[in-house]
Amino acid sequence: MHILLTNDDGYFAPGLQTLYEVLSECTDHDVSIVAPEGQRSATGHSITLFNPLFVTEYPLRDPIKGFAISGTPSDCVKLAVQGELIPKPDLLISGINQGSNLGTDIFYSGTVSAAMEGVLLGIPSIAVSLASFEYKEFKPAANYLVENLDRFLKLEHHGLLNLNIPGKPREEWGGLKVTRLGKAVYENIFEKRTDPRGRVYFWQSGSMMQDYEDDTDLRAIQEDYVSITPVHSDLTDFDCLSIWKELLVKTK
Amino acid sequence: MHILLTNDDGYFAPGLQTLYEVLSECTDHDVSIVAPEGQRSATGHSITLFNPLFVTEYPLRDPIKGFAISGTPSDCVKLAVQGELIPKPDLLISGINQGSNLGTDIFYSGTVSAAMEGVLLGIPSIAVSLASFEYKEFKPAANYLVENLDRFLKLEHHGLLNLNIPGKPREEWGGLKVTRLGKAVYENIFEKRTDPRGRVYFWQSGSMMQDYEDDTDLRAIQEDYVSITPVHSDLTDFDCLSIWKELLVKTK
Repeated sequence: MHILLTNDDGYFAPGLQTLYEVLSECTDHDVSIVAPEGQRSATGHSITLFNPLFVTEYPLRDPIKGFAISGTPSDCVKLAVQGELIPKPDLLISGINQGSNLGTDIFYSGTVSAAMEGVLLGIPSIAVSLASFEYKEFKPAANYLVENLDRFLKLEHHGLLNLNIPGKPREEWGGLKVTRLGKAVYENIFEKRTDPRGRVYFWQSGSMMQDYEDDTDLRAIQEDYVSITPVHSDLTDFDCLSIWKELLVKTK
Repeated sequence: MHILLTNDDGYFAPGLQTLYEVLSECTDHDVSIVAPEGQRSATGHSITLFNPLFVTEYPLRDPIKGFAISGTPSDCVKLAVQGELIPKPDLLISGINQGSNLGTDIFYSGTVSAAMEGVLLGIPSIAVSLASFEYKEFKPAANYLVENLDRFLKLEHHGLLNLNIPGKPREEWGGLKVTRLGKAVYENIFEKRTDPRGRVYFWQSGSMMQDYEDDTDLRAIQEDYVSITPVHSDLTDFDCLSIWKELLVKTK
């Protein structure tokens, strides 16, 4: 297989580089990297229309290539595939992200959005996140993904696969749980400050509330399970369609 | 009702300002504006975590207020509601956007993402777009929304309502169609150039291909109908959940 690696933490982030090393050492797959040149967390599915995109090439093993892009994670995937920086990949992996990407938070995630862009371009795509900002050992998570890649790819699915791995030593992980996306709710979101010129500004932060529903990815990670969620790409609310058609004709 | 207006074209964009005028003149609703200080098209659902958010207040009719924010459309909605810049609104309207927001393109849209942020915060939300970059008459679209607001709000729905209006004089519009999201496919996406220092860069553009499926929002707008699509906020692919649970246990 030809695998495209990308992320939102940037080309040289240890999560991506560790996954590249493990894929290169432990498999026969060709691995290209097309990733943002720097930190792009929380950039969601944004793309760059009002600035040019610059490309810096880094040497990888021939014939595969590595490119750092001045844009967003979704720009990277579009430029890699539609801009033909690399041959069309058989699989896209976005990550390993430093920090979880769970529940409704995936809307904000550059990591998950890059995988979604892959899906929109017809490429099977996996987003992988290590669910901690402090724990920095990416190798167990990379090994886990590589060990399980074949069975994950056998799952019939037209969307993306969102994988979150506990940010702890492997012996503390529970098993694998198939989960639905939970609702991530935050409190104390904005911190108000005053700059040296007296202007008011806000920092966005906040802590996640700890009241998670059963069967969700949030709960699984809270209980130290590996979480896998099938995510689709059609936001149409089909349950409403026929009802709305009738109602809007009636009330015309 | 207290209505929060936002957009991704910026606080002073004519689409938002025209909608504000029509809502203020033709209804009794209180209307607050919290919108980006400048152009934020294609910023998707990105939020600002690594920069402070500055707020500029503009006078509107008392007691309602207008704020321009240094961040993204989703920042605006979060800061308005979670940062309590304004009282919690009963309805959020994002737009009127210059240009359509249709099909899978809504992933990139700051306009639709702002409305999605409203939904995540429990506020009924409508995204409104004028489906042309050239046609600049926003008043007929604003009037249409105001005339139909009550019947749209009677539709039971837990997601957002994505409304696209033809970018043409009203007498050329067809009726209202309830649609599903289509698949927006582009060709000739990237234009390669060389800067004065000899560095290669890319502009992202591309034209949409014109082969749309029945019942989609893309087709409706192509045929000059007003398009309304119910959009939900749960990206879980529920069709796969139980099958995956069984398969992953089997192959363990």
